[in-house]
Amino acid sequence: MTTTDEDERVRRTSTETDPDIYNEDGVVRSDFLTKISDAIERQDVPFLQQNVVRLHDSELGDLLESLPPHERLALVRLLGNDFDMTALTQVDEAIRMEIVDQMPNDQIAAGIGELDSDDAVYILEDLDQEDRDEILSQLPFTERVRLRRALDYPERSAGRRMQTEFVAVPPFWTVGQTIDYMRDEEGLPEAFTQIFVIDPTFKLLGSIDLDRILRAKRQAKVEGIMRETSHPIPAEMDQEEAAQLFEQYDLLSAAVVDENQRLVGVLTIDDVVDVINEEADEDIKRLGGVGDEELSDNVTSTVRSRFVWLAVNLITAILASSIIDVFDGAIAKMVALAVLMPIVASMGGNAGTQTMTVTVRALATGDLDIYNAFRVIRREASVGLINGILFAIIMGAVATFWFHDFQLGIVVGAAMIINLVAAALGGILLPLILHRFGADPAIASSAFVTTVTDCTGYFAFLGIATWWFAIH
Amino acid sequence: MTTTDEDERVRRTSTETDPDIYNEDGVVRSDFLTKISDAIERQDVPFLQQNVVRLHDSELGDLLESLPPHERLALVRLLGNDFDMTALTQVDEAIRMEIVDQMPNDQIAAGIGELDSDDAVYILEDLDQEDRDEILSQLPFTERVRLRRALDYPERSAGRRMQTEFVAVPPFWTVGQTIDYMRDEEGLPEAFTQIFVIDPTFKLLGSIDLDRILRAKRQAKVEGIMRETSHPIPAEMDQEEAAQLFEQYDLLSAAVVDENQRLVGVLTIDDVVDVINEEADEDIKRLGGVGDEELSDNVTSTVRSRFVWLAVNLITAILASSIIDVFDGAIAKMVALAVLMPIVASMGGNAGTQTMTVTVRALATGDLDIYNAFRVIRREASVGLINGILFAIIMGAVATFWFHDFQLGIVVGAAMIINLVAAALGGILLPLILHRFGADPAIASSAFVTTVTDCTGYFAFLGIATWWFAIH
Repeated sequence: MTTTDEDERVRRTSTETDPDIYNEDGVVRSDFLTKISDAIERQDVPFLQQNVVRLHDSELGDLLESLPPHERLALVRLLGNDFDMTALTQVDEAIRMEIVDQMPNDQIAAGIGELDSDDAVYILEDLDQEDRDEILSQLPFTERVRLRRALDYPERSAGRRMQTEFVAVPPFWTVGQTIDYMRDEEGLPEAFTQIFVIDPTFKLLGSIDLDRILRAKRQAKVEGIMRETSHPIPAEMDQEEAAQLFEQYDLLSAAVVDENQRLVGVLTIDDVVDVINEEADEDIKRLGGVGDEELSDNVTSTVRSRFVWLAVNLITAILASSIIDVFDGAIAKMVALAVLMPIVASMGGNAGTQTMTVTVRALATGDLDIYNAFRVIRREASVGLINGILFAIIMGAVATFWFHDFQLGIVVGAAMIINLVAAALGGILLPLILHRFGADPAIASSAFVTTVTDCTGYFAFLGIATWWFAIH
Repeated sequence: MTTTDEDERVRRTSTETDPDIYNEDGVVRSDFLTKISDAIERQDVPFLQQNVVRLHDSELGDLLESLPPHERLALVRLLGNDFDMTALTQVDEAIRMEIVDQMPNDQIAAGIGELDSDDAVYILEDLDQEDRDEILSQLPFTERVRLRRALDYPERSAGRRMQTEFVAVPPFWTVGQTIDYMRDEEGLPEAFTQIFVIDPTFKLLGSIDLDRILRAKRQAKVEGIMRETSHPIPAEMDQEEAAQLFEQYDLLSAAVVDENQRLVGVLTIDDVVDVINEEADEDIKRLGGVGDEELSDNVTSTVRSRFVWLAVNLITAILASSIIDVFDGAIAKMVALAVLMPIVASMGGNAGTQTMTVTVRALATGDLDIYNAFRVIRREASVGLINGILFAIIMGAVATFWFHDFQLGIVVGAAMIINLVAAALGGILLPLILHRFGADPAIASSAFVTTVTDCTGYFAFLGIATWWFAIH
C-alpha cells in the first residue's frame, strides 16, 4: 500500500494542516518571510527543508515572488534537489527566467524529471534551444520523447498544454479488470478523473469518468459503459478554442488526439483555468494599451512595450489637433471655444470607450454574432442619441451660464449630440470591422475609437461654431 | 444496470455524435436556425422534440439567444416539460427573465425539480419573492429545504453557488463497502469527483478523490485513505475568494461547510470557472466605465447605466477645462497653445491608463502586494520619466516645425515630461489608495487618473508657456 505516490500524498496532507503562510489580505505573512530570509542568510538548510519543502507549489511560488531577487536564487541553491520546480510554473515569467538562468542544467534536468509533463513543457518552452537540448538529453528516453513531442506542437496549442501521462485501457476489459489494474499499477498519473479507452493502435474510442466506473458492476464491459468522446481536442487546436470547449460542455478533462485520432495526451481543467485567466488578462491589457507586460518586467522592457502604443496615440492626437489648427481663426476670436472643445472630445472618448468595451468583450465571449449585431448596433446608436441629447442639455446650460452666452450653449449642445452618436457608432463598428478581418479587436480599437471621437468632437464643435457665429 | 441516470447518459452520448449545430466561427448555423424557426411557426412539436431536446444545455442556450424574442417564448411553450431549464443558466440575464416571466409557475416548479440544486438556485435567485415562494411550495419537502438554505446565504457567496447533492460516508467504512454503496445507491449526484467523510453529526472529517478509491484495496478503511480537508470553504465566503482557493490549490471540487463545520454542500470547478469569467468581465467593464451591463439589455437600462459614468466624466472634464479658462489670455495671444494642449493631455491620459491597467490587474490577481509595491512604483516613475523625455524630444521637434517656433517646442517638451511622470504616479498611486481603503480600484480609477493627467497636462503646458513667454 506504500508506493511513492502514497508518500507524496501523505507528505502533502501533513503539510496542509500546517499554519497558513498568508495573512488575512492573502499576502505572505511578514514574520514567515523574515524567518525564511534569516535562514537563507545563515544558510540553515535543515530549517529551510523543514519549512519550505512542505509548501504547496503555489505557496512556494508566492514565497519566491515575495523574496528579494538574490534571496530567491540563494534559496533555490540551498534547497538543491529538494526544490520543487513546479513552483516555477506559478511565478512571473521574468522571475522564472532569472531563476532558471542561474540553475545548472543538470539540476534543471533532475527537477524536470520529477514534474508532470505539462509543467515540464511550460518551463522548457521558454529556454533557448541549446539549454533545452542539453536538458532533454539528460532525461530518460521515454520522457525525452514525450516532452519533445509536446514541444513540437505550436505555442499556445492544446498539444503544448496537455499532460502526456494518462490511464488508457482496451474496450474488452471488464470494470473489475480495470479496477485491479489501477490497484496494482504503480506508474499511474498523480491525479486523474477519467480513463480512456483505446484500440491497439492507440486510436481513441471513448472515455469513462471515474464515478461511472465506481457505479458499474465489476463484470460490466468497458465498451459497455464508455462514452464516445464527442469532443476530442486536436493537438494543434489553439488553447483558447480548447478552453471554450471546456466551458461550453463543463469538461474536467479531455482527450488530446493527433491527426490520426490517436490519443497523445490529456488536457485538464486546471490548465484551462490558467488559459482563461491568461486570455482575460490579455484582453484587459490590450484595451489598456499595454502588451504582454508582467509586473516583474524591468524598466527597459516596460518602456519599450509602452512606447509603441504611446507613439500610435501621438500620431492620432496630432491628427486631431490639426483639425483644431484649421479653426485657429475662430479660436482667436473666441477663446471660450478652446476652453469648451476638450469637454466635447472627452465626453465622446468616454462614450466611445463604453460601447467599445462592451463590444470587444462580447466578441471575445462569443456573445455578439450575426444574429444580434444589428439589434446591438441599433441599440448603441439609440443610447448614443439619448445620452447625447441629455448631455447636450446639461452642457448647453453649463456653457450658457459659464460664458453668459446662450448661443455658445446651443453650439456645444449640438456638437455633443453629434459626437456621442459618432462615439456609439465608432465604438461598435470599429471592433466589428477589425474582428471581421481577423484582427484582435482589443488591440487597436481604443486608439481608433478615440481618434474618431477626438476628430469628430473638434470638427463638429469648432465647425458649427464657425458657421453659427458667421451667420448670426 | 438501467437507472434513470443511465438513460440520461445514453441519451447524451447519442446526442453528441449528432452533427454540430455551430459553423466554423462558433456561431449557430443559419440553416439549423431556419429549420427550428420554421418548426416553431408550424407548431411541429415532434420535430422540435427530436432536434432540440437532444441538445446540450449550453447549445440550447445558444439557440435561444440566436432566436428572435417571440420565437424563444414559443419554443419554450411548445416543448413544455421537455424544455431543459438548465439552458436558462446559460443565457443572458435579460433573456432569462423574459422567458421565466412568461412561464407559468407550475411549469417552472416542474423544471426546477429536475435541476441540480446550484442551477435551481441560479434561476430562483432572480425571481421576486412571491413567485419564488410559490414555486418552492410546489417542490418536495427535502428539495425545498435544501434550496431555501442555499438561498439564505448571501448573494455571490459560496453557499449560493454550491451544489447540495454529494456523496458522504462514515470514516469506519471500508473501500469495498463504499464502492458497493455507490453501485447500489440510485440517488447519487449526476457527476462527482470526490466523496466526503463525515461523522454522525455531519461534521466534515475529510475527503477522498475517486482515483484514490480506485487505487486502494477493498479492505482499506476510509479513514486510512482520506485526506484531511485543508481548505473547507465556509458557506458565507465570497465566491471570488473561493475561486482563488480553487486556483491556488488546483481543486476540482471542495467541501462547503456551515459555521459549525458541518458539510452543507460542494462547490465544483465548473461554477468556479463561471465565477472567474464573471470577475474578469466585471474588471474589464468597470475599467471601460460600464456597469453590470449585458448585451441583451434594452435601451433604457443601458442609457441609465452609462449616464452616471458620463456624468462623472463631465464633471472632471469641466474641472480640467476651468484650468484652461485661467489661461485664456495666453491662448488669445497664441492660438497654437490651444492646438497643442490636447496632445499633451492625451499622451498623459494614455500613459496613465497603461499604468493603471497594469496596477488594477495586478491588484485583482494578487500579484501586487507590500513586498513589491515600492519596486513597482519606482519602476513606473522611471518608465514615465524615460518615455516623457523621449516624447518630449519627438513632440518638441514636431511643434518646432509645425509652428516654426523653437521656444514653443521647448515648452511642449517640458510639459510632456511633467505630465508623463504625473500620469505614471497617478496611474499607480490612485488604484493603490482606492484598494487600501477597501474600494474596488477598477471602478473609479480611470476617471481619477484622467482627471489628474488632464489637469496636470493643461496646467503644466499653459503655465510653462505663460511663464516662458513672459520672461523671453
